[in-house]
Amino acid sequence: MPLESVPNVSEGRDAVVIDAIGAALAGRATLLDVHADVDHNRAVFTLVGQEQELVDALLDGIAVARKRIDLRSQVGAHPRIGAADVVPIVPLRPEDMERARSTALELGRRIGQELGLPVFLYGELAPGRGPAFFRRGGPEELQRRIDAGDVVPDFGPMQLDPAAGGVIVGARRPLIALNVNLADANVEAAREIAAVIRERGGGFPGVRALGLDLEQAGHAQVSMNVEDWEASALHEIVAAIEREAAARGVAVAGAELVGLMPAGAAAAVAGAALGIAGFDASHLLELRLLDGG
Amino acid sequence: MPLESVPNVSEGRDAVVIDAIGAALAGRATLLDVHADVDHNRAVFTLVGQEQELVDALLDGIAVARKRIDLRSQVGAHPRIGAADVVPIVPLRPEDMERARSTALELGRRIGQELGLPVFLYGELAPGRGPAFFRRGGPEELQRRIDAGDVVPDFGPMQLDPAAGGVIVGARRPLIALNVNLADANVEAAREIAAVIRERGGGFPGVRALGLDLEQAGHAQVSMNVEDWEASALHEIVAAIEREAAARGVAVAGAELVGLMPAGAAAAVAGAALGIAGFDASHLLELRLLDGG
Repeated sequence: MPLESVPNVSEGRDAVVIDAIGAALAGRATLLDVHADVDHNRAVFTLVGQEQELVDALLDGIAVARKRIDLRSQVGAHPRIGAADVVPIVPLRPEDMERARSTALELGRRIGQELGLPVFLYGELAPGRGPAFFRRGGPEELQRRIDAGDVVPDFGPMQLDPAAGGVIVGARRPLIALNVNLADANVEAAREIAAVIRERGGGFPGVRALGLDLEQAGHAQVSMNVEDWEASALHEIVAAIEREAAARGVAVAGAELVGLMPAGAAAAVAGAALGIAGFDASHLLELRLLDGG
Repeated sequence: MPLESVPNVSEGRDAVVIDAIGAALAGRATLLDVHADVDHNRAVFTLVGQEQELVDALLDGIAVARKRIDLRSQVGAHPRIGAADVVPIVPLRPEDMERARSTALELGRRIGQELGLPVFLYGELAPGRGPAFFRRGGPEELQRRIDAGDVVPDFGPMQLDPAAGGVIVGARRPLIALNVNLADANVEAAREIAAVIRERGGGFPGVRALGLDLEQAGHAQVSMNVEDWEASALHEIVAAIEREAAARGVAVAGAELVGLMPAGAAAAVAGAALGIAGFDASHLLELRLLDGG
């Protein structure tokens, strides 16, 4: 069973750069999906491979991101501290978490050593620290915290690269990146809704959410990571956003998936929508064929 | 790629008989699912295998059904004309339909020859004829139509077996068998709703539906085959049933899947429920892994 990685890079507009990073990633591993967003100014790649090929592919892709992206001129709705901003290693089976941890550690060590970028561990390798811990205030604030001794890079130099920043590296369980678009540009409403539904605000367990203003798209967005779709069902989250939006006089225009979704999460939504108790991924023909056929 | 078969047998109560049929089917092919219903008095097996193993497995299973089920004492909510009532061969990819057709023909020929049961072809092998064409009025009426020359078995004798009846055999595209349960025993409402939503009544394309009275379960049911989930989305069918039920003062208690569901059908429901435009099975991680990983 391969491991997955979902590198997020801070370029969502220049197709030439996005393609170059994708080509570098795809050289040694299998690139399953690319999702670029103009307003976020961010691209999310979904990559699978065995440990060594995954690390090699990620180093190649991060090297291209480092060369082609300059944070000093990069402006986007999504917070970031690096050209290659966050690079999680994801086990596709729960029992592969230890492999994901050691792969992420090896990746972080080599980014520091070979690319000379500061690396910040998060997730399973630094419990309690998510990407947001490093991103708040942007690269300048992160450098200030490093200089003050509040944050210490786990690998690489003590100085963020002026153009490429640093890289947040970790191992984490699969998550679902789901954005819900409001029908208008009411970013205040999006921020309020995000604050209500996320775990930190007493909302859904394992849900992280931001309210963003998408200028090109012309509307506001509740941008989410759903870390545990069994604890927090997607349809219940979307329904809650619709209720909160309605309470603020705003309509929901639709949702958008970034990357891919575990079949079990889609099956759970389908089962709830159809009223089929106990419906899960084991009732999907293609998956059953895999197991049994 | 294997072919699928979904034999439906007229025994949903006696676990010993159901297990014996399942064991016979599983001897030479791969049994993925068994769904038995007490009120329907019917069991639906989902089986996959290559042509020859599938035919051999089905002959073994049908032989056990023939020996263990006696239609003269069998009573259930679901119409039937055979112990092994209907045996479809299903291509898992559209391009395998010709393989499914020839496999079904070979199966029909051998049922007639080796088991001595009359075989009636349907679906792709007898366009315009569905199982309902043979079942209306039950075995007695079917025998009368045979005697009158209105129906001629495609293989086997001209006489239905007194205990085991005949076998309806064919090739067909994958379908979804979905039952929606009403909250009470209002079978009249179930029949009216079935009449409104099925294709024959001007409802959803490719939807066949019956209103049934489930005595053990204590409620009525709209029992459906959805032959084309791309033409008739499951959530729209269920929503229509809910509306029709509400208009008759009846609530919907939930739904039940018989057998397995193609991942694309579940993804379509999930995408609609979440408001993700264009969401389909290619966005499911496990399936993408299969294709690309």
